[in-house]
Amino acid sequence: MGKNLREPLLKLLIEQKEGYISGEEISQRLICSRTAIWKHINELRSEGYQIEAKPKAGYRLVYRPDRVAPEELIPHLSTTSIGRAVRYQRSVPSTQSLAHEWAKEGAQEGSLYLTEEQTAGRGRMGRIWHSPTHSGIWMSLILRPPIPLNQSPQLTLLTSVAITRALRKQTNLPIQIKWPNDLLIHGKKVCGILTELRGEQDQVHYVVQGIGINVNATESVWPEELRPIATSLAIEGGRTFSRPELIGAICGELETLYDGYLSYGFTPIRILWEEYAGMLGQEVTARTGQGSVKGIAKGLAETGALLLETHTGVQTIFSSDIEW
Amino acid sequence: MGKNLREPLLKLLIEQKEGYISGEEISQRLICSRTAIWKHINELRSEGYQIEAKPKAGYRLVYRPDRVAPEELIPHLSTTSIGRAVRYQRSVPSTQSLAHEWAKEGAQEGSLYLTEEQTAGRGRMGRIWHSPTHSGIWMSLILRPPIPLNQSPQLTLLTSVAITRALRKQTNLPIQIKWPNDLLIHGKKVCGILTELRGEQDQVHYVVQGIGINVNATESVWPEELRPIATSLAIEGGRTFSRPELIGAICGELETLYDGYLSYGFTPIRILWEEYAGMLGQEVTARTGQGSVKGIAKGLAETGALLLETHTGVQTIFSSDIEW
Repeated sequence: MGKNLREPLLKLLIEQKEGYISGEEISQRLICSRTAIWKHINELRSEGYQIEAKPKAGYRLVYRPDRVAPEELIPHLSTTSIGRAVRYQRSVPSTQSLAHEWAKEGAQEGSLYLTEEQTAGRGRMGRIWHSPTHSGIWMSLILRPPIPLNQSPQLTLLTSVAITRALRKQTNLPIQIKWPNDLLIHGKKVCGILTELRGEQDQVHYVVQGIGINVNATESVWPEELRPIATSLAIEGGRTFSRPELIGAICGELETLYDGYLSYGFTPIRILWEEYAGMLGQEVTARTGQGSVKGIAKGLAETGALLLETHTGVQTIFSSDIEW
Repeated sequence: MGKNLREPLLKLLIEQKEGYISGEEISQRLICSRTAIWKHINELRSEGYQIEAKPKAGYRLVYRPDRVAPEELIPHLSTTSIGRAVRYQRSVPSTQSLAHEWAKEGAQEGSLYLTEEQTAGRGRMGRIWHSPTHSGIWMSLILRPPIPLNQSPQLTLLTSVAITRALRKQTNLPIQIKWPNDLLIHGKKVCGILTELRGEQDQVHYVVQGIGINVNATESVWPEELRPIATSLAIEGGRTFSRPELIGAICGELETLYDGYLSYGFTPIRILWEEYAGMLGQEVTARTGQGSVKGIAKGLAETGALLLETHTGVQTIFSSDIEW
């Protein structure tokens, strides 16, 4: 039966409500071996399902993680374009790659690719992005802004502001923005944004924005080296959060800010961004391809580049890692 | 037999050397109708083949247009990367679209997609690019430069310089560069370059550069409205040019300049560009998305943007149509 066992098994467990169902009964009803059941029970556990196994009584479903499937997301959506077209798969290599394909097929503005886990999620510059199952929001958003290529960095900043506003409202946590594409809580990374695009100098053809948010992750899901620098909303807030609800809130903020951006330009976004950017006024080090630059982070240029006041004057930083 | 008749028919005609071959003999040897032969003869004529038809004697091949197929190009190539991987199809909708697919499959740097005609060739901002059969060079070049997104306009300028140098040497014609992406002779367009890319703020993932050059075109191949503004090397030079030879020369200049660019940056390219740009020092009008700007064209910014000296100061033009 292989993969086809998962959904009927889950259905049987859910139907029992608070009761147990024996391995023998499952085996008879699904026409499969006890070993196959055991294998799938363990797979569900690894996805965050808590399933009790009691000798003689059988299996009982104790906790079901939330899902970001369209039917769970729609009740939380109040938008007209962002998130209105959705594709969902439980597990994918990377939502970015799939969304690029979708965009090329003509996906409408605001289309959203959602998943529970990525097996090959990626961040800036080909870095690995850890996307453990059910523990975060891993999604890719398709936009078609009528802007020239040199304004495209503005979109990362716009999305940073939208997510910050949504998460602050939903969690009351002190989210801050780190240029160019991270959100932090108490200096640890809770969210990353990867803006990829296809275009020509005169116009962006489409943008695919990867958004990764550590929502209900516990430290144990990350490799050792990430633990000192990563955090999640659950770790910081001391409780779990509903991912579909958060996605709904993010889509709402995104739509408001994006509509405003298309009508009034980048200036309103820049003002909000500067309010949420923890690094402004501080001395930072920007590591660029050409070496390191030290200076006081002053704010944003109109294109979205970072302005650093160094001892030789104001420098415009387009691409770099920032430390402070 | 349909499309399969074309190649054997051409082979028969070529084999006759200076002699005629009767319709009846063709019909017997290719097992096809006289009508089918006539249809394919006319198709070959529309591609630039001159085929004489003499009553009683039959058909004779008088002139064969050159082709840009790999076997004709290779003798003219002296490069190690640019043009070393080639894909060729006699007719395609657009080499750009096919090269994007190829780049995604992992095409190596310098890969070149070549064709005799495009049925849906495109220029900047989705404009139509006329690519009549055998009359020009229609090709797309794949590059993978390790540069951030904001430096990508430099690549259009680099390629403009490379093509200008190659064509000046091969034709002795006074080719000039018009920012951002055209080459002109006596004010008329002879070449356009379309730089499309996929990338993120920190790095370009790949570039697909469409290069269209009117080589042996006569005015009659263009629609009425293009005739006052378009020209070809043949019209200006009073003779036809070998397209494979020109492509070989262009690949050579491209490789030299691109290698230099990767080692020494944009400055040497900028100096050459300014030498070939007909518009420098002149008053020009830049029509941007936000309106028109009038000023004296002063040169290039380090990113490849155009610097215009207006009465309110120097303005940096990133995307616009230029008139002067």
